[in-house]
Amino acid sequence: MTASAPPSAPVIDLNADLGEGFGRWSLTDDDALLSVVTSANVACGFHAGDPSTMRRVCELAAERGVRIGAQVAYRDLAGFGRRSMDVPRRELADEVAYQIGALDVFARAAGSRVAYVKPHGALFNRTVHDEEQAAAVVEGTVLAAVGRPLPVLGLPGSRLLEAAEGAGLPAVAEAFADRAYSTDGTLVPRGRPGAVVEDPEEVVARSLLMAVDHRVATAEGEKITVRARSLCLHGDTPGAAALALLVREALVADGVALEPFA
Amino acid sequence: MTASAPPSAPVIDLNADLGEGFGRWSLTDDDALLSVVTSANVACGFHAGDPSTMRRVCELAAERGVRIGAQVAYRDLAGFGRRSMDVPRRELADEVAYQIGALDVFARAAGSRVAYVKPHGALFNRTVHDEEQAAAVVEGTVLAAVGRPLPVLGLPGSRLLEAAEGAGLPAVAEAFADRAYSTDGTLVPRGRPGAVVEDPEEVVARSLLMAVDHRVATAEGEKITVRARSLCLHGDTPGAAALALLVREALVADGVALEPFA
Amino acid sequence: MTASAPPSAPVIDLNADLGEGFGRWSLTDDDALLSVVTSANVACGFHAGDPSTMRRVCELAAERGVRIGAQVAYRDLAGFGRRSMDVPRRELADEVAYQIGALDVFARAAGSRVAYVKPHGALFNRTVHDEEQAAAVVEGTVLAAVGRPLPVLGLPGSRLLEAAEGAGLPAVAEAFADRAYSTDGTLVPRGRPGAVVEDPEEVVARSLLMAVDHRVATAEGEKITVRARSLCLHGDTPGAAALALLVREALVADGVALEPFA
Amino acid sequence: MTASAPPSAPVIDLNADLGEGFGRWSLTDDDALLSVVTSANVACGFHAGDPSTMRRVCELAAERGVRIGAQVAYRDLAGFGRRSMDVPRRELADEVAYQIGALDVFARAAGSRVAYVKPHGALFNRTVHDEEQAAAVVEGTVLAAVGRPLPVLGLPGSRLLEAAEGAGLPAVAEAFADRAYSTDGTLVPRGRPGAVVEDPEEVVARSLLMAVDHRVATAEGEKITVRARSLCLHGDTPGAAALALLVREALVADGVALEPFA
Repeated sequence: MTASAPPSAPVIDLNADLGEGFGRWSLTDDDALLSVVTSANVACGFHAGDPSTMRRVCELAAERGVRIGAQVAYRDLAGFGRRSMDVPRRELADEVAYQIGALDVFARAAGSRVAYVKPHGALFNRTVHDEEQAAAVVEGTVLAAVGRPLPVLGLPGSRLLEAAEGAGLPAVAEAFADRAYSTDGTLVPRGRPGAVVEDPEEVVARSLLMAVDHRVATAEGEKITVRARSLCLHGDTPGAAALALLVREALVADGVALEPFA
Repeated sequence: MTASAPPSAPVIDLNADLGEGFGRWSLTDDDALLSVVTSANVACGFHAGDPSTMRRVCELAAERGVRIGAQVAYRDLAGFGRRSMDVPRRELADEVAYQIGALDVFARAAGSRVAYVKPHGALFNRTVHDEEQAAAVVEGTVLAAVGRPLPVLGLPGSRLLEAAEGAGLPAVAEAFADRAYSTDGTLVPRGRPGAVVEDPEEVVARSLLMAVDHRVATAEGEKITVRARSLCLHGDTPGAAALALLVREALVADGVALEPFA
Repeated sequence: MTASAPPSAPVIDLNADLGEGFGRWSLTDDDALLSVVTSANVACGFHAGDPSTMRRVCELAAERGVRIGAQVAYRDLAGFGRRSMDVPRRELADEVAYQIGALDVFARAAGSRVAYVKPHGALFNRTVHDEEQAAAVVEGTVLAAVGRPLPVLGLPGSRLLEAAEGAGLPAVAEAFADRAYSTDGTLVPRGRPGAVVEDPEEVVARSLLMAVDHRVATAEGEKITVRARSLCLHGDTPGAAALALLVREALVADGVALEPFA
Repeated sequence: MTASAPPSAPVIDLNADLGEGFGRWSLTDDDALLSVVTSANVACGFHAGDPSTMRRVCELAAERGVRIGAQVAYRDLAGFGRRSMDVPRRELADEVAYQIGALDVFARAAGSRVAYVKPHGALFNRTVHDEEQAAAVVEGTVLAAVGRPLPVLGLPGSRLLEAAEGAGLPAVAEAFADRAYSTDGTLVPRGRPGAVVEDPEEVVARSLLMAVDHRVATAEGEKITVRARSLCLHGDTPGAAALALLVREALVADGVALEPFA
C-alpha cells in the first residue's frame, strides 16, 4: 500500500473504518477499501464486527501491508456506537482493553499486530472534550499494550490526544477529507447544513490541500492550518470506496507519499 | 497455591469456573475460590464475564499464583452458554479465538498469561462427542496462541482432547469431584437421580480416591480407573467455596501435591 | 394488496420476511416488498428487527392492507437466527410470546394486529421435525394471543402445523417459489446442488403451477401435489423485490386471487 | 395485597423493582417482595428480565393482586441500565413501547394488564431533567397503550410527570423511603454521604411520616412537604425484603391504607 516518493515529499496516511458488519449484515466494501487505505480502523465487536469478519479483514490487511488499528467503541450494537454513554472510567478502560485484545489475536494470526487505536462514533466525539473518557480510552490502550507504546489516532487538540501524550503514547493527528471545518479548526457538527462535503471533486481538492499545504478552507471560505499525519476517508456510504480511490490517486499523482504512521 | 510434596507423591491440579458474573450480577465467590484452586477457568464475556470482572479475577489469580484458563463458550448470555448451538466450524473457531485474545489482555496486564483453554457448559458437553465443534475449539485455540502450544482441558476420551492431541496441543484430562460415573468412565448425565454427589464427606472421599489411587466408585458401586491431571470443583452453588476448601485440605493432609498442569 | 377474482378462481397469499435489519444495518427492501406481498413476516428483535424498524414496517403494512405476522426466532443476532439452539421448551415458549407481544404493540398502534406467527431460520427448520420445539412455539403463540386463535404458518406435514392444529390454532400451509422439492414433498436441503431455483422465469412458472394446479416439479422432474394457502417469496437477496413483483404480476394475469389467509 | 382502612385514613401504594435477574442470574427476592408491595415494577428485558422471569413475576403478582408496572430501561444489560445514553427521541419512544408490549403479554396471560410505566436507573434519573427523553418515554407509553391512558410513576416536579400530564396520562408522584432529601425536595445524589438511609428504624419512621403527614426531614434536619401516592422500597440489597415488610407492617399498624394507584 505504500507508494514511494522523494524524501522531501509530503507524507500522509489514509485511514478508514472497516469490518463494520455484524453476522448477516455488512456495511463497508472492505476489499475495495483495503486497496486504498494505508491504515484500517477495524471494528472490534462492540458496535460492529463479528470475529470472522475481524479475522478476514486482518488477513486481507496484512496481505496488502495495511496497518491494523483497533476501532474501539461503546458496547452498543443497536445504536452502532453512535449514542454517547456515561460509562464509568474504569469500566470503559477495561472495555477498550478487551476489544484491543480480541482484535490483536486476529492481527497476530495474520502475521501483523494491532498498530494503533482509534475510538468510534460517539466515543470519538465524546473524547474530544470529555477528560474522563479520554483518560479511560488511553488507560485501556496502555493496559492492552503492556509496555508497547500503541499510537492513538484522533483530532488535533482533543482531550484524547492530550491524554495519549500524557501517558507517553504517540498521539497522531488526523484530518477529514469530507468534513467542513470552522475557523477555530473544529469540525462543523453533523446535521448543520454543509457539514459534509459531498462533491467528489471538492473532496479530492481538499484532500490535496490538506496533505500538501496543511491547509483547508473553512465554511466561511477562509484558509486555516490543519496539520495531520493521517487523512480519514469514509467507507460506509454508497460510492465511498470509489471516492476513496479517487483521493488516493490524486495524492499519488501530486507526489504525496502514502505512508502509514504506525 | 502450590503445596510442596515429596517427588513420589501423587500430583493433582484443582480447577473451577470463576468470574461468571456479568455487570450487576455475580455468581461465583471468586475471592474464596482463588485461595483454593490452582487453575481458574475464567469466563470470557460470551456466556458470562464482563471486562472489569475478567481484569479483577486475573489480577487476583496472578497475585496468588493461580493459572489462568480461558473458559470459552457459545455466545449466549441469556442461556449462560448452556444451550447447545449449531455454530459453523469456522465461525466457532473465530469466536473461541476472540475470547482467548480478550482474556489474554487482562492476564498479561496482571503479569501472567492465558495458560490453557476449557470449553464451558453446552460447548463442553458437545465437544465430548461432536468432532466438528471439537475441531473448531482447537482451531480457535491454535489461532489465538500463534505458535504457543496452549493446553486444552477436558474429559478423557473426548473428541476435544483427541483433536487437541491431533493438533499438537497438550491434552489434559480432568475428573469431577462431585459427579457420578458410569462403568464406561463417562459421567452420569445431569437430571438422572444421583448424577451429582451432594454429601460433602463423599465428595472429599471421592476426590482423595481419584487423586491418590486414580479410581472412582461408579453409580453401581464398582471401582473403575480414572486418570486425571486435574480435578474440577464446582463454584456456582451455595457452599461451593467451603466444600472446595475441604477437598483441598484433605488432599494436602493426605500428601497429595497440588500443582497446576500448565 | 388484495386483487379481486371470480369466486371459483384459485386463491393464494404471498408472504415474505421483512424488517430484517438491525439499527444501522438493513437487509430487505421493505418498501418495495410491501407493494407485492399480502402477508409480511416481520422480524421481532431476536434475530433482527429493532423497535423503530418494526414500527415503520407495521405502519407501511397497515397502510397497504398487508397482514402483519410475527417472525419469531432464536435469540441470536450474531447468527441471524440461523443456528439451531437447544432452548428448553418453557423458555422457548416464553421467548416466542415476548416477541409476539412486542410486535403487536406496533401493529396495534398502526391500526392493525399481529395476524399470524411464522418461525424464522433455524427455528423454522427445526420445528419441521422437533416436537418439543414445535410445541413450544405453539405454546408461546397461545400464551401471547390470550384466547385469540392466532394462525401458524409453516410447511405442510411439519410438527409445527400438527402442534398448531392440536392446540386449536389455524395451521396454514405454505409453499416455496424458489426451492427445489423432493418426491416426498420436502424441500431439498440448502447446500445441495439445485436446492434454490435461481432462474426468474422458472420461479414464476413454478409459482403459477403451485397456485393454480397445486403441483410442482421435483428435482427429478416428476410432478407432485403441493397444497398451500400461501407462497413464500424471498426478500433478502439482490433482485428479490423485482422477482417478487414478477411473480405477483404473473399470478394476477393468470387470474389468481391474491388474498391473505388471516 | 390491599389492606382495608376507614375512608378518612391516609392511603399509600408501595412499589419496588422486581424480576431484575437475567437467565442464570437473579437479584431480587421476587417471592418475598410480592407479599409486601402493592405495585411491582417489572424489568422488561432491556436492563434485566428474561421472558421466563417476566412470566413468573406476572403470574405471582396477578395471584396476589399486585399491580404490574413496566420498568422500562435503556438497552444495556452490561450496565444494568445505569449508564445514561443519548438515545434519539423517536428511537427511545419505540424502545419503550417494545418493552411495554412484551411485558403486557405476560401480564394478560396471567389475567392482569400492564397498569403503569416507570423508567429504570439512568433513564429514571435523566427524565427528571431531560425534556426530550421524558417526552420519548411518554410517547412510547402512549404508543403502547393505544388509547388506554396508562399512568406514569415518577418524581414530583420531574420533566417526566410534566410530559405525562401534557399527554393526558395520569402522573403519579412517588417518594423514597430510604433516600435523603434536600431542602428543595430533590433527592440527595447517590455517592454523597448520607444519601441512602440505612438504619431500618429510621427508614420505617420516615415512611410513616411521609405516608401519614406528607412530610420528610431533610439532610439538614428541616421538615419539608412531600406529597406522594406511592412509596418506593428497594429490593436489590441484602435484607431488602425484610425491611420492606417492616415498613408495610408499620404502615398498616398505623392505620395507613395500602392501595395501588392504578
